[in-house]
Amino acid sequence: MTVSHDQIAALTEVAHALADAARQAILPHFRSVDLVSDNKLDDGFDPVTVADRAAEQAMRDVLAALRPDDAILGEEFGATSGTTGLTWVLDPIDGTRAFISGTPTWGVLIAVGDDAGPVIGVIDQPYIGERFTGSPAGADLQGPHGNSTLKTRGPRPLSEATIFTTFPEVGTTAEAKAFHAVAGQTRLTRYGMDCYAYALLAAGQIDLVIEAQLNAYDIQGPIGVIQGAGGIVTDWAGGPAHNGGRVIAAANADIHKAALAILEEHL
Amino acid sequence: MTVSHDQIAALTEVAHALADAARQAILPHFRSVDLVSDNKLDDGFDPVTVADRAAEQAMRDVLAALRPDDAILGEEFGATSGTTGLTWVLDPIDGTRAFISGTPTWGVLIAVGDDAGPVIGVIDQPYIGERFTGSPAGADLQGPHGNSTLKTRGPRPLSEATIFTTFPEVGTTAEAKAFHAVAGQTRLTRYGMDCYAYALLAAGQIDLVIEAQLNAYDIQGPIGVIQGAGGIVTDWAGGPAHNGGRVIAAANADIHKAALAILEEHL
Repeated sequence: MTVSHDQIAALTEVAHALADAARQAILPHFRSVDLVSDNKLDDGFDPVTVADRAAEQAMRDVLAALRPDDAILGEEFGATSGTTGLTWVLDPIDGTRAFISGTPTWGVLIAVGDDAGPVIGVIDQPYIGERFTGSPAGADLQGPHGNSTLKTRGPRPLSEATIFTTFPEVGTTAEAKAFHAVAGQTRLTRYGMDCYAYALLAAGQIDLVIEAQLNAYDIQGPIGVIQGAGGIVTDWAGGPAHNGGRVIAAANADIHKAALAILEEHL
Repeated sequence: MTVSHDQIAALTEVAHALADAARQAILPHFRSVDLVSDNKLDDGFDPVTVADRAAEQAMRDVLAALRPDDAILGEEFGATSGTTGLTWVLDPIDGTRAFISGTPTWGVLIAVGDDAGPVIGVIDQPYIGERFTGSPAGADLQGPHGNSTLKTRGPRPLSEATIFTTFPEVGTTAEAKAFHAVAGQTRLTRYGMDCYAYALLAAGQIDLVIEAQLNAYDIQGPIGVIQGAGGIVTDWAGGPAHNGGRVIAAANADIHKAALAILEEHL
């Protein structure tokens, strides 16, 4: 389906209303001493906080009022069907490990789109008060020091590039090997930023983010922001990334191609 | 030398004046597109920015006006002697790699103390607008959502602890092995936070920070903040850490002891 210019403006307003609601729900819990977390996975450490659930519920309440016929896919409460062909994809707190350690690099991820992927994306960092928003109309940052347009970096050789990923391990051993093959050719590798890395890519600060084993709700918000800022997000074979899995986000087509060639060689 | 209660209040005011001056000098350069960086080390990537130099100069100007007889040790411009027995230790931008990639986890580090170590410490994050300050009078946070007292966490077993370090590599191979021996027993390991990790420890969010190959100016600000908040900072043998090197910062004596035992076993 094609989303019209007017629809984009209206849906962007809704996305901001969702982000506002999530901020209000989450902030009282960030760095609170009575933070409740429990293990969602038996074999790992995937904390779910009260804030996570409260924020998704708050966003669902806004959608029930403003966009009751759209579908929803949320990290906490799963899928709700709709009739418009549009789906809101919500990750109330991406980076729960950052959240429970007090680091303000977690974010609220919001996207709306159709089967072909997200049209609008938001990465919101409530504590800093930073909101990265992207759509076919462009991308912008509302931050503590004012508002600005987001634009990804121009091409540069891998040897001058900065690459981010969340964990040094990056998925399986084979996936980690492929990641490090790319990272080894860059100038600077940084870890631990969760969704904030995608925001930095949209803001023209870094060149590449490579991750694996993502869920759809981890990446759809970032895709909307990065595409709006002129960047590219695909899977490691150059195909669509909005269903998650192995993801590469690049500032421009040149560096995307260069990194993809190395990933393919090492898988 | 002993610093009196009145002196602590006066010196804390000066420390804030330094942090204010550094903020003003640095912020125009953060995420600017014309950021100038050059390699300080021939064999590695240690960017020095215009902001780094401007901020240290701004802080030195404040000291020339307010504390002309104190000594200064600065990351950028080295040592200046004094006559009071007090030395200001300045790192205008700790975390230059974070800075050049747009990540707001770098900080301005300020300490004042004598040969026995820092008495007052500041970790300031200008973009977020967060200032962590510690002294024998206590520790507090001035942040975007108000002010609060800083207090480190109480004891918990290593198996429930959160540990931070900046780089997965942590110095030499032997040092990395020792670090990972501790980290392997904790619940959560996070990377890439630079001085912000020490701020999180002071804020009661995490339990341990372990690093190696630090300089005096990397750690004196954090020592002042953490000690003021009730935590402990030593080298990996339990001795003073204010000259840098291998550093362990712990929320309390119990977890400090537990981590130190493992470090010693693996070195």
